[in-house]
Amino acid sequence: MTQLGPGRPRLAPRRRQGQTPRAEILDAAAELFTTHGYGSTSTRAIAEAVGIRQASLYHHFGAKDDILDALLGETIAAAAELAERLGRRPEPATVRLYTLARFDIGQLCEARWNIGALYFLPELHGERFTRFRSRRDALRTSYEKLAAQVVAGAGEAIEARTLPFRLVETVINIRSDAGGVPEETRRAIAEAVLRVLGVGDDLAGIREAAEILARELRV
Amino acid sequence: MTQLGPGRPRLAPRRRQGQTPRAEILDAAAELFTTHGYGSTSTRAIAEAVGIRQASLYHHFGAKDDILDALLGETIAAAAELAERLGRRPEPATVRLYTLARFDIGQLCEARWNIGALYFLPELHGERFTRFRSRRDALRTSYEKLAAQVVAGAGEAIEARTLPFRLVETVINIRSDAGGVPEETRRAIAEAVLRVLGVGDDLAGIREAAEILARELRV
Repeated sequence: MTQLGPGRPRLAPRRRQGQTPRAEILDAAAELFTTHGYGSTSTRAIAEAVGIRQASLYHHFGAKDDILDALLGETIAAAAELAERLGRRPEPATVRLYTLARFDIGQLCEARWNIGALYFLPELHGERFTRFRSRRDALRTSYEKLAAQVVAGAGEAIEARTLPFRLVETVINIRSDAGGVPEETRRAIAEAVLRVLGVGDDLAGIREAAEILARELRV
Repeated sequence: MTQLGPGRPRLAPRRRQGQTPRAEILDAAAELFTTHGYGSTSTRAIAEAVGIRQASLYHHFGAKDDILDALLGETIAAAAELAERLGRRPEPATVRLYTLARFDIGQLCEARWNIGALYFLPELHGERFTRFRSRRDALRTSYEKLAAQVVAGAGEAIEARTLPFRLVETVINIRSDAGGVPEETRRAIAEAVLRVLGVGDDLAGIREAAEILARELRV
């Protein structure tokens, strides 16, 4: 048996993705929640999947909903940070919105497990997830603010400003049905984010400017 | 105690939506599945919510997944039927696609429970739901065929033909977050279905023609 922290024996060698016990627990939980269901997964099953004792799991997470909360937070953290940085940039709103959408689509598609499918759990309406809900609301608001600026430029489709955020999250639906999202579809969704706001001209130019911006921001 | 079918005593008077015991079971199950979770809901809890004995429930449904299958089928049946009728109509593809989207958005929004949120259950990947998955695939294909005709007309955005179906289903995501979908948003989504395909001109004319077609088809 290998050692996991001071005096905590592991029941099996590490076989999970992740550099730390915490990351391994999150990876195992994400797999079980998305393939067996949240309600049907016990902390005991998660500990077993990692190869640690249940008591060791409780050293990292107080309860199953703490694990879910950490996983949900991961689905929005990087996009929220990018949205904040984009708010301070001088590029046109079209370019910034495309950059945000393209990044967010990419990270939702490439995450090892389709954690966004857990947004639909009834548990998320409870008080325990108030903080996650308000963080996700903040990200949605960032999308809507950028979209409103784009619409002001395009002069129509103001009601559609809520749709870019929704379009980006359709990759969760596509992954859930099809397992993966081809590159052409990712690009089509990012372009659709602008099209629903009435932007149809020079999508190639916007895409190019967004690629330059993304490289500069290292995302 | 009132009577439910030949010799089956009810434990409580009917208090569920639905004209028949079967409809009452479906209504109760939809509520429990969407508010407590599918995994956490037993057939016993469903029977109790209806006010019938568990044995009576089994008279209508062999198992919990049969109830889920019936509920899922309800989310696509009417749209699939309309899609078939629209396939035989002479109106332009833009008008037919808008008509389908507007109808489907409406029925997904107005269903008493947001059953589409159950599309994300891991259980749906099992063999039990092969038939439902292929029925939903057929509906998606109907959308894609209409969208491909629209794109052929607009001459661009061919990859986007997968998006109208996905856009319509975002009402499931919006309901899940916000509880309801305002009329302006429903209309914005239906218009976005055309915008993502590169159709930006004369949306008002298409909308009007679609309203006439919907009245003619009585949907």
